[in-house]
Amino acid sequence: MKRTHLFIVGIYFLSSCRAEEGLNFPTYDGKDRVVSLSEKNFKQVLKKYDLLCLYYHEPVSSDKVTQKQFQLKEIVLEHWQISQWWLHFQTPREEGKMKLLELSESADGAAWKRWGGNSNTHRIQLVAQVLEHKAIGFVMVDAKKEAKLAKKLGFDEEGSLYILKGDRTIEFDGEFAADVLVEFLLDLIEDPVEIISSKLEVQAFERIEDYIKLIGFFKSEDSEYYKAFEEAAEHFQPYIKFFATFDKGVAKKLSLKMNEVDFYEPFMDEPIAIPNKPYTEEELVEFVKEHQRPTLRRLRPEEMFETWEDDLNGIHIVAFAEKSDPDGYEFLEILKQVARDNTDNPDLSILWIDPDDFPLLVAYWEKTFKIDLFRPQIGVVNVTDADSVWMEIPDDDDLPTAEELEDWIEDVLSGKINTEDDDEDDDDDDNSDEEDNDDSDDDDDE
Amino acid sequence: MKRTHLFIVGIYFLSSCRAEEGLNFPTYDGKDRVVSLSEKNFKQVLKKYDLLCLYYHEPVSSDKVTQKQFQLKEIVLEHWQISQWWLHFQTPREEGKMKLLELSESADGAAWKRWGGNSNTHRIQLVAQVLEHKAIGFVMVDAKKEAKLAKKLGFDEEGSLYILKGDRTIEFDGEFAADVLVEFLLDLIEDPVEIISSKLEVQAFERIEDYIKLIGFFKSEDSEYYKAFEEAAEHFQPYIKFFATFDKGVAKKLSLKMNEVDFYEPFMDEPIAIPNKPYTEEELVEFVKEHQRPTLRRLRPEEMFETWEDDLNGIHIVAFAEKSDPDGYEFLEILKQVARDNTDNPDLSILWIDPDDFPLLVAYWEKTFKIDLFRPQIGVVNVTDADSVWMEIPDDDDLPTAEELEDWIEDVLSGKINTEDDDEDDDDDDNSDEEDNDDSDDDDDE
Repeated sequence: MKRTHLFIVGIYFLSSCRAEEGLNFPTYDGKDRVVSLSEKNFKQVLKKYDLLCLYYHEPVSSDKVTQKQFQLKEIVLEHWQISQWWLHFQTPREEGKMKLLELSESADGAAWKRWGGNSNTHRIQLVAQVLEHKAIGFVMVDAKKEAKLAKKLGFDEEGSLYILKGDRTIEFDGEFAADVLVEFLLDLIEDPVEIISSKLEVQAFERIEDYIKLIGFFKSEDSEYYKAFEEAAEHFQPYIKFFATFDKGVAKKLSLKMNEVDFYEPFMDEPIAIPNKPYTEEELVEFVKEHQRPTLRRLRPEEMFETWEDDLNGIHIVAFAEKSDPDGYEFLEILKQVARDNTDNPDLSILWIDPDDFPLLVAYWEKTFKIDLFRPQIGVVNVTDADSVWMEIPDDDDLPTAEELEDWIEDVLSGKINTEDDDEDDDDDDNSDEEDNDDSDDDDDE
Repeated sequence: MKRTHLFIVGIYFLSSCRAEEGLNFPTYDGKDRVVSLSEKNFKQVLKKYDLLCLYYHEPVSSDKVTQKQFQLKEIVLEHWQISQWWLHFQTPREEGKMKLLELSESADGAAWKRWGGNSNTHRIQLVAQVLEHKAIGFVMVDAKKEAKLAKKLGFDEEGSLYILKGDRTIEFDGEFAADVLVEFLLDLIEDPVEIISSKLEVQAFERIEDYIKLIGFFKSEDSEYYKAFEEAAEHFQPYIKFFATFDKGVAKKLSLKMNEVDFYEPFMDEPIAIPNKPYTEEELVEFVKEHQRPTLRRLRPEEMFETWEDDLNGIHIVAFAEKSDPDGYEFLEILKQVARDNTDNPDLSILWIDPDDFPLLVAYWEKTFKIDLFRPQIGVVNVTDADSVWMEIPDDDDLPTAEELEDWIEDVLSGKINTEDDDEDDDDDDNSDEEDNDDSDDDDDE
C-alpha cells in the first residue's frame, strides 16, 4: 500500500484539471441526451424509465438550424457580453451566413430581461449526463407542436419542468440549478418509506425537525395497512418524509400502537396521532393535505417557489436566521418556541430562511428588504411587490423574547403592522396602487 | 394589510419570471465589473476594498477583439454543441470576419477536455455582480503580462483564485461554483471571532461538531490576549471557527479559565486546553497548525480540493454517509466512536463525505468507485488513480460495529487491505505502474 501506482484512468485524467483523482466535477460533454417528446414516441419513451423528466418549453421550429439557433440564443443571452456583438454562424451542411441575434448595447437589455438569461435546456442536459446510468429519462415538450400532448398531461406553464413517476405528475418548482435538480431526482427514486429498525435510527428520526414527517407501526412489509401507507407516501415524496417500523422496541420508544401513524409538524416536540386507525391511502392523503401548512417552515431550494406562492393573504412572515451562527441559532430557538405556543393558529405560518441555503440571494434580499442578513431578522413581506416591514432588533446580543415576538406577530396578523405604513420611502406606491389594484394576481380585498 | 398593492418594483419585475416577488435569482447582467490588475493600478485598487479577489488566468492578448475571443471561447467551450459549428463574428468597429474557433465533432473533444469547459470568468462576473454593494473587489491577473506582479504575490497555479485580505493571501481551493464562492467570501468579511454571551449561544457552540473550533475566555475586547487570539483567528478564517466569551457564566459552563483557549477537534466531546496560557498570536497559530489534521473530517465544497490533496501516503480513507438518512446517521455515529477511540493515531484521518453536499458528484463517484451511494460506504481511495477498495457491508440494517470498523482500518493502515489487490479488473495497471512510477506526483516510496 506504500507504493503509489500511476495507472491512468484515461477519461478521468483528461476531464480533470487536478493532479489528483476522485473529485472531478462534471462539465457538459455536448452529447444530446434529451429527446423531443411527441404523441408518437410518448408511450414507448415512458415505459423505458422509472422516472421521466419533461421540460415544457416555448415553441421551437423543428428544423436543425432553428434548434441550434434556440440553443445558441440561450447561450448568448446567458452571456450578455456577446450580445454586444453581431453573431453569425454557418454549418458544413449549409452555405452562406445566417444572422442569429441582433442585440446590441443599445438594446437596453429588454430581450435579455425577457429571457432572464435562461439556459434551462443546458442545465437539463448536464443533469441528464450526470444521471445517465440511473433509470431517468429527459425529454423536451414543445408548447406549440405538442399542445395536445401537453394538455393531456396537464402542463400549463411554459418553461416548467414536470416529472412523471408511475401515474403521478410532479412539478419541479424549485431553484433551477443542476445540483438542486439532481438531488430532487435522486430523492424521488429512493423508496418512499424509510424503515426505522434501531435505537440510533430512532435518534436520527427524532433529529429531523425541519420537515413534515410521519411514522407508522405495522406488522410487516406485507401488511395491507403498510401498503396503504406506502401508497400515501408516494403522493408527497420527496417533500414530506414517511417512516415506518416493524419493530416492537422502536414502536414502544415512540409510543406507537399497531397500525397507528403519527404526524409530526416541523419543529414540534409532540406528534398528532392520526385518528381512526387503521387508515386507507385516501384517509392518510387527506389528513396530510389538511395539515400541510405548518406554523413554522423552512424555505428549501427544491420547492422554494411553491412555498413562496403559498402565502397567507398576500403576505409572508419571513424570519432570516443562520442556524450555524450562534445568534441565528438562538433566534431560531425563540421562533420554535413561538411556533409551539401558536401551533393551533391557522392564520400563522412563519417562513424561516437560512441565508446559508441561498448564497446567491443574500445580497438581493439585503437590497430588496433593506436589511442586514449578518444578523437575525423577522418581517412581513408583501409577495406582490416585495414591499416589507421588519422588526426593530437593536442588538443581536439582545434578541426579542418569545413574548415580544408574539406581540409583534399579533400586530402583524391584526394589520396594525403592515407593509404599507412605511411607504414614504417608495413614494409612487400609493398612486400606482390606485390604478393597478384590479390586475393584482392575488388581490385579497373583500 | 388586507389590501394588496401592485406597486411594481420595475427592475425586479423585469428580471423575474414569476408572478410573485421576493425570490429573484440573479442572472449575469453583462456589465463588466472585473478589471485587469497591473502593477500600475495595483496599490490603488487594493486600498479601495476590504477584500480583493484575483483570478490568475492564462495569458490573453490585451486588444479588445482577442479579449472577446477569450470570453467567447470560454462560452463556446462551456456549451460543446456549438463547437460542432464554425463560429464567426464581426464588430461594428471591425470589418470582415474572424474565425474564432474551429472545433468540430471530429476534434474528439481534446480541446474541450483541455479546457474542462472552464468558464470561471463568467462565474466571477456573476459573483462580482451579486456582491456589488459589499466592499469586495474582483480583478484579473494575466499570467504572462503580469508575471512580475504574480510572482510578487506568490501566485503559481494558472486558473486559481486568490483573495487578498489585509496582508494575508488566501487561495480559494474549493468547488468553482458561484454560490460556493459567494458564501466563502461572505464568511471572510465576517468578524474572525464570534462572541458567545448566552446559554443558548453556548448550546449553538456545542452543536458545531464538524469544524475545528477554538474558544477563549478573556477579560474584555480590549484585553491584549483577546487581540492576539483575534489575530490568530484571521490566519484560519473561514476554515477554522474561533469563538470567545467575556462572560463568567459562559466560561464556567465551558470550564474555561481566564485567558485560556480550548481547542476542539471535530466530533470530539472533550477539548484540549492549549498549554502555557496566556498565548501570543504565534503560539496559537503554531498550535492550530500542529493539530490541523483531525482523525475524522468532513469534506466541504469550499475547501474540497485542498482537503483531497492532504492525503496520507497517497491514500484517503473515505466514508460516505448521508447524515439526513437514518442509516447514514447511524454509520456516522459509529465513525465518530472510532475517531474518538483513535484520536491519538497521527496516521489516521478519515474523510467523511455526505453525498447531499455534492449532488453533481454522486453518479461520478458511484461509477468511479463502483459503489452504491444510497447506502453507507467506507473504503480506501488511491488519490493518484482513484483506484479503490470498499468494505463489505452486506446489509445497511446490519452496519459494522465500531470494533469491526477498527479492525478493518487497522488492516488498511498496515497495508493488508490496499487498492492494488483487486486489480484484476483494471489489468494494464501493473505494467503502466512500472514505467510511470517515477513521474508520480506523490510517490511515497522510500
